[in-house]
Amino acid sequence: MSLANRNLVTIDNISNGEIEALFSVADEMADSINEQSGLCQGKIMANLFFEPSTRTRLSFEAAMLRLGGRVITAVDIGATSLAKGESIADMAKVVGSYADIIVIRHPWEGAAKVVADYAGIPVINAGDGSHEHPTQTLCDLYTLRKERQTIKNLRIALWGDLKHGRTVHSLIYALARFGATILFYPGPGLEIPEHVLKRLSTEYKGELQRCGALNQELKGSVFPVDAIYMTPSSPHQLTMLPDVNIQVELEAGVDALYVTRLQKERQSPTAEQQELKKNYPVVDKKLLTGKEFKKTLVMHPLPRVDELAYEVDADPRSMYFKQAAYGVPVRMALLALLLGAKDVAIPKADDSFARKVDYPVYKRDSGVKCLNRNCVSNQETETKYIKPEFKIVSFDPLTLRCIYCEHELEPQYIASSEWHQGKLENKKYHSANSHWVRKIKPENLIIFPSEKEAQAHQFKPSAWNRQ
Amino acid sequence: MSLANRNLVTIDNISNGEIEALFSVADEMADSINEQSGLCQGKIMANLFFEPSTRTRLSFEAAMLRLGGRVITAVDIGATSLAKGESIADMAKVVGSYADIIVIRHPWEGAAKVVADYAGIPVINAGDGSHEHPTQTLCDLYTLRKERQTIKNLRIALWGDLKHGRTVHSLIYALARFGATILFYPGPGLEIPEHVLKRLSTEYKGELQRCGALNQELKGSVFPVDAIYMTPSSPHQLTMLPDVNIQVELEAGVDALYVTRLQKERQSPTAEQQELKKNYPVVDKKLLTGKEFKKTLVMHPLPRVDELAYEVDADPRSMYFKQAAYGVPVRMALLALLLGAKDVAIPKADDSFARKVDYPVYKRDSGVKCLNRNCVSNQETETKYIKPEFKIVSFDPLTLRCIYCEHELEPQYIASSEWHQGKLENKKYHSANSHWVRKIKPENLIIFPSEKEAQAHQFKPSAWNRQ
Amino acid sequence: MSLANRNLVTIDNISNGEIEALFSVADEMADSINEQSGLCQGKIMANLFFEPSTRTRLSFEAAMLRLGGRVITAVDIGATSLAKGESIADMAKVVGSYADIIVIRHPWEGAAKVVADYAGIPVINAGDGSHEHPTQTLCDLYTLRKERQTIKNLRIALWGDLKHGRTVHSLIYALARFGATILFYPGPGLEIPEHVLKRLSTEYKGELQRCGALNQELKGSVFPVDAIYMTPSSPHQLTMLPDVNIQVELEAGVDALYVTRLQKERQSPTAEQQELKKNYPVVDKKLLTGKEFKKTLVMHPLPRVDELAYEVDADPRSMYFKQAAYGVPVRMALLALLLGAKDVAIPKADDSFARKVDYPVYKRDSGVKCLNRNCVSNQETETKYIKPEFKIVSFDPLTLRCIYCEHELEPQYIASSEWHQGKLENKKYHSANSHWVRKIKPENLIIFPSEKEAQAHQFKPSAWNRQ
Repeated sequence: MSLANRNLVTIDNISNGEIEALFSVADEMADSINEQSGLCQGKIMANLFFEPSTRTRLSFEAAMLRLGGRVITAVDIGATSLAKGESIADMAKVVGSYADIIVIRHPWEGAAKVVADYAGIPVINAGDGSHEHPTQTLCDLYTLRKERQTIKNLRIALWGDLKHGRTVHSLIYALARFGATILFYPGPGLEIPEHVLKRLSTEYKGELQRCGALNQELKGSVFPVDAIYMTPSSPHQLTMLPDVNIQVELEAGVDALYVTRLQKERQSPTAEQQELKKNYPVVDKKLLTGKEFKKTLVMHPLPRVDELAYEVDADPRSMYFKQAAYGVPVRMALLALLLGAKDVAIPKADDSFARKVDYPVYKRDSGVKCLNRNCVSNQETETKYIKPEFKIVSFDPLTLRCIYCEHELEPQYIASSEWHQGKLENKKYHSANSHWVRKIKPENLIIFPSEKEAQAHQFKPSAWNRQ
Repeated sequence: MSLANRNLVTIDNISNGEIEALFSVADEMADSINEQSGLCQGKIMANLFFEPSTRTRLSFEAAMLRLGGRVITAVDIGATSLAKGESIADMAKVVGSYADIIVIRHPWEGAAKVVADYAGIPVINAGDGSHEHPTQTLCDLYTLRKERQTIKNLRIALWGDLKHGRTVHSLIYALARFGATILFYPGPGLEIPEHVLKRLSTEYKGELQRCGALNQELKGSVFPVDAIYMTPSSPHQLTMLPDVNIQVELEAGVDALYVTRLQKERQSPTAEQQELKKNYPVVDKKLLTGKEFKKTLVMHPLPRVDELAYEVDADPRSMYFKQAAYGVPVRMALLALLLGAKDVAIPKADDSFARKVDYPVYKRDSGVKCLNRNCVSNQETETKYIKPEFKIVSFDPLTLRCIYCEHELEPQYIASSEWHQGKLENKKYHSANSHWVRKIKPENLIIFPSEKEAQAHQFKPSAWNRQ
Repeated sequence: MSLANRNLVTIDNISNGEIEALFSVADEMADSINEQSGLCQGKIMANLFFEPSTRTRLSFEAAMLRLGGRVITAVDIGATSLAKGESIADMAKVVGSYADIIVIRHPWEGAAKVVADYAGIPVINAGDGSHEHPTQTLCDLYTLRKERQTIKNLRIALWGDLKHGRTVHSLIYALARFGATILFYPGPGLEIPEHVLKRLSTEYKGELQRCGALNQELKGSVFPVDAIYMTPSSPHQLTMLPDVNIQVELEAGVDALYVTRLQKERQSPTAEQQELKKNYPVVDKKLLTGKEFKKTLVMHPLPRVDELAYEVDADPRSMYFKQAAYGVPVRMALLALLLGAKDVAIPKADDSFARKVDYPVYKRDSGVKCLNRNCVSNQETETKYIKPEFKIVSFDPLTLRCIYCEHELEPQYIASSEWHQGKLENKKYHSANSHWVRKIKPENLIIFPSEKEAQAHQFKPSAWNRQ
């Protein structure tokens, strides 16, 4: 199994075994970083940054240059082609004819998937809005593996803005795949979104424990909010204890404390935000004196603002500059593998945690659109060629997940494309909550976002609706 | 004949034979694009983009890197040196001492010529305002040649904004040089400028046919406007038919339909522009079902907006992504030739279509200035060293063409530098429409933009003026 | 003595002998600029430009590429990490783990020192606010040496904006170190700052002569302002003449006339500035006809605006484009040396002019802050980890020099950390002008910026203060 000519749009594009294989290549790179300049000679990487990001971009460039490859970079794109009304699919096709691999950062969620769909060459997502940033996740996992010798069955506490941080959501799914036990410590108002929790339990076999507020007296610097605790549902002692107390868990220690900053650039700067900023918890020397953190790695995707005190930098548990530094060998390994310059044997057995859910696809032109305004499928320049497409991830309630940005929606009306005996009076729509949703075969299912839309498609309300 | 150390500022800088020779090098590059990395090793290309353009810039960079060369890029220039009041001549001299070749894009018309005049190394124009973009033209011609096996005597229909598109004017002159028959299908209000038509007939030996409005019934999607039809004046059957109908011509089929977008970024966004946009014609599947387009290549310089439907992309006649892709081998060939890394035999016989008009030069300091406000010769930072200079392209009416931006003007007053018998009373100016304009030898001709300017130079009105 | 792994933050970081050694490497580079591509193969230079500068940046990039090295560049940083509130120390650490050497330009004074303190790899200052731009100084010195065969004991006239130009201050100190005689010809209101003059006399052993206004009749184009004349205090005939007239000096000729532009981008655009611009002196052909300039090199750091007429460009005395061109071999030499790719023998004897002043350090947390609002130590993102630190450069009056931006301040209150017999009543503060300043040992000295601050530290006014 080869990674050559593959894309990395979401962390799900790469199996557990492939991740482990990639990390062993990264080890090679790290061990002799100055001796890899023959690997990608003559290859060109195109960096398309529709949103600025010095750190990620320079890390990719350093990686490609250390492999002997060459780089073409556009950080000025917003001001140019987009201003002329060009679609990202056109840009992808054109740049795909110039370069051998594309690295894309874009503010629209799902943009990296579109580039991958059209470029004709391997594409790496370097961040698409609030959706995914899979190479950051790889660097995080690689750091854990370097320090703990494994990425399996770790205990990780996530700290800070668990609501907006794209790095955190990617990381959570990846940790889940490797059987981690995760403790969530969100800042006030920055809790992990419900859809992430739901996905953890349905797709990653996690068991969730919601615990009461922590005792503020006991641990002043830990957030006085409800905490959520997630364990893999594979045999694991803790899931046997329904009333487990998160403090007990915490006191058992965690492998890493993963700190994130307040994602202020993705929010409007309001009074509320000022408040959030003021109450945002800080990891400092004092916190880390707690015995529960004695062997805990302190991780952070950087850049930091105030949530991680400078005084912690000198502490041997601080991993965040290592995480950044590992960005080069990890990205070297990834580039070399996708470009086919390296090949690795991927042990099939290692794939045990890989997610394997085959949801039915919904892509009828029945007026259903992704409700995420920042989704690539909703942008004026892109609707000329992108048709909305979804996975039906649940029938109760009926839930669609956009294949671009992975946001979910619950449409309210359904119909069947089978008109029994071809009678027009059978062209009726029903509530998505009715028993019909399970009677209509997925391939016949028609979904409407509203009664108005159903009627616009010449469907009439069923008896239920007429009540 | 070598192309080494030459500039490519306008498409006229390169003869027909040289273009054909360059294309045979481009064929070599395209055939083994990954084996050229020894050609320009150690050479540095400086990309000076005073105006953003991701596509063109990345194409040049990919080309230079595939040749084994290296690239230094400035896309941030507007914000830096210009802000400090630096001239582009100074910038050219300095960068000319850093690099081996310069690629320049600049919003001022004529800017590339100034850079070429001062850099001391080869300079390629990657677009100077609305003036020229010769490498785009080369890519267009190369695409035609690849698909039609020749670039001579083709039949091309130009479609859309024929008024503002710089790519189109360069392309028209180049097609004319290769004996093309050109059909102009402008959008409403976007007709080909008269000066382009005039130049086609005087310098490129074209014969123009102005035809009546197309029958709107017949061809709903073709523009209901007057069309212009241009044939080479070398023996050609069609020029024998003075009342040729453009629809007959069109029905005979064309080799390519060259579509351009509305150049909105060069216009102020007015109500009028909104109107233009609404009425702008679209090339779609339906249009291409016409039998006259059966074998027609669909070309577009990209980026497109709405004038070319996405549904056409999958059609084998669609060439626009190929045009973009050919940008790399064509630019590789150009760079290798100008840097002297490749040499080619240029068949003298092939040069038959090359333009050879030696106009007299006018560069007296008599107050005549280019009337194009966007001309490099009219910019505050550049007037410190640029003196206006013109070619006298006609004496009836007296017409000057700016050597920088190639805009033309018709000054109204003339005098002679020969003061007969040295008498001051002979220091008189005349109307440029008078018989004097042909009596004064070109080397003695003094031209004034106004009576005021003539008088400021101590000339008095002649009897004619005193009437 | 090797330059490998060293930083170049200020021109003082490199001794006279090292400068001369660097120049002999630059000679080698200039002689065979296309044959150095093996020297830095595999090395990566990171260009961090927090402030745009096409010229300096491209020169560094060309230098690194000619050495066979590779470049990663960020010119978009202001818009990215800083917007997220990141400190430059964090940025330095991260980029220090990607690259082998950093080139930094930043608008804050002292920023390059911070980057050097944290990056862990060699750092070159490419301009930090109005502080230093040492590689420009090296290019200036190298040009003088190329044309005069030595950089010792030259006579240089400095012309124009001597107040704001960072290039000029660095250059002045460097010239002083090599025993130059310097004549200052500032534009009106653009005189050399007193702190620069003071430093010249105290640290560089210069003798200053302040001369009366020049006779305006005699020399219309030279500024009608008081001139300052600086000679090295080592045996030198002119210092014997206390009433030396600057015109006599000038008439003896100078090796170079160093012209600078009005640094308008560092000032607010006021009516006053308009006035300055109007009166700013111009170097033109006419000025250079003076016999005192017969053999004078005309130098300018570029970009020029109006202070240097284009008509001078063709004059063989004009050096400014050579200065720019020498930027490549000088920077090649610097990069090769700091990266350890070249090594040179540095003659100890040559170091005679090197500055050797060991000032006591002051870094107590007693409320003293640098008064330069543009100093890196005063920026919100940086105060989280930077503690103010000073050199005590004088005790009479007590003068502190910020170790970051080198601005000086004269604090008014002092105390001792020795509380005699541990009695609280001895915890008193005194005026910095009192005799106490010399009685307290430097290691015990406590300095307060204000009485309020002293009292906040539980010190009481001494008898003197209570009066």
